[in-house]
Amino acid sequence: MNDADRHVAAMKKLQNEHRERRSKARDPGRGLVLVHTGDGKGKSSSAFGVIVRALGWGQRVAVVQFIKGKWQTGERQFFAKLEGAVDWHTMGDGFTWDTQDKAGDTEAARRAFERARGMLECGDYDLVVLDEINIALRYDYLTATEVKAGLDARHERTSVILTGRDAPEELCAYADLVSEMREIKHPYKAGIRAQRGIDF
Amino acid sequence: MNDADRHVAAMKKLQNEHRERRSKARDPGRGLVLVHTGDGKGKSSSAFGVIVRALGWGQRVAVVQFIKGKWQTGERQFFAKLEGAVDWHTMGDGFTWDTQDKAGDTEAARRAFERARGMLECGDYDLVVLDEINIALRYDYLTATEVKAGLDARHERTSVILTGRDAPEELCAYADLVSEMREIKHPYKAGIRAQRGIDF
Repeated sequence: MNDADRHVAAMKKLQNEHRERRSKARDPGRGLVLVHTGDGKGKSSSAFGVIVRALGWGQRVAVVQFIKGKWQTGERQFFAKLEGAVDWHTMGDGFTWDTQDKAGDTEAARRAFERARGMLECGDYDLVVLDEINIALRYDYLTATEVKAGLDARHERTSVILTGRDAPEELCAYADLVSEMREIKHPYKAGIRAQRGIDF
Repeated sequence: MNDADRHVAAMKKLQNEHRERRSKARDPGRGLVLVHTGDGKGKSSSAFGVIVRALGWGQRVAVVQFIKGKWQTGERQFFAKLEGAVDWHTMGDGFTWDTQDKAGDTEAARRAFERARGMLECGDYDLVVLDEINIALRYDYLTATEVKAGLDARHERTSVILTGRDAPEELCAYADLVSEMREIKHPYKAGIRAQRGIDF
């Protein structure tokens, strides 16, 4: 076989694998639960990318940000300009290392999750993003048990993305998809400042 | 120490680490090169999320898609509706396993990369996304050497994101940031069909 023939043979094999998987695949009949975790870049940004996909298909989207507080970000400015395309709620008072107030942070996280529960149950949304909720779980502001109960109670139309490092095992076991973003190399480590439009 | 005090102590330590890192951090004085690779979900979608951040800050963005061809996606429909916010070019004829034509795919990838080089050099863009270019490298449609030369020749204002599984070692060594999206669990494996608004 020459190179072109080998390529055709390899691609036919791949194509068959894809076709077979596709022919067996079924619709879940309900929204999915996706977890983005790990120490690398891309957990929140890929949730924002999925929002873009959903909006492109005319779907309805809500976001609850659990941690980032009042910090000005590109994503918030962008979706604010789209006027009502995304229901965006930032409930946190900022990074936990800046507030240094466990009781206050817990209270803020619980209010945020109450809001999120309403969004999950109401049936208005195709996609709800719970941004950095894994950090709220990491610091015991919320329990995995109550978050799973909230996910169980979601409307069948609604998919959910939960982001943040250190997602608890119990949540990963519950989810349909878990992606771990691993830091292989990061410019912070080389002493480079967080960049507008890239990191926030 | 009680629980609240322990929390304050731990958070102060974290805050100091963040402050110290931030005080030492410098601006790179040029755009960064980011690689999103791995077998998990989130490589392209996090690039689209970074586009949202960049647009939120009023930056200019271009995308060249190397592989996905004429397949209708949420992201393309979304950015098309924004009228000129993103210069979007889909140069591939589709998945390599559907075309099964190495010479044709190579030619398409080379044309796409010529287009990308122009975008990298012209200085019009803060961010250029080379979506699925790692697949073009994986199948030897392009070489890592020529891609690095294109990145070297970019305007100092321009950051670049290169996505796709199997990013070559040479490209990862060159990049400022490498994030590996690892598949921990994926609904395809459970026989669930790719979902509109989530997967495309």
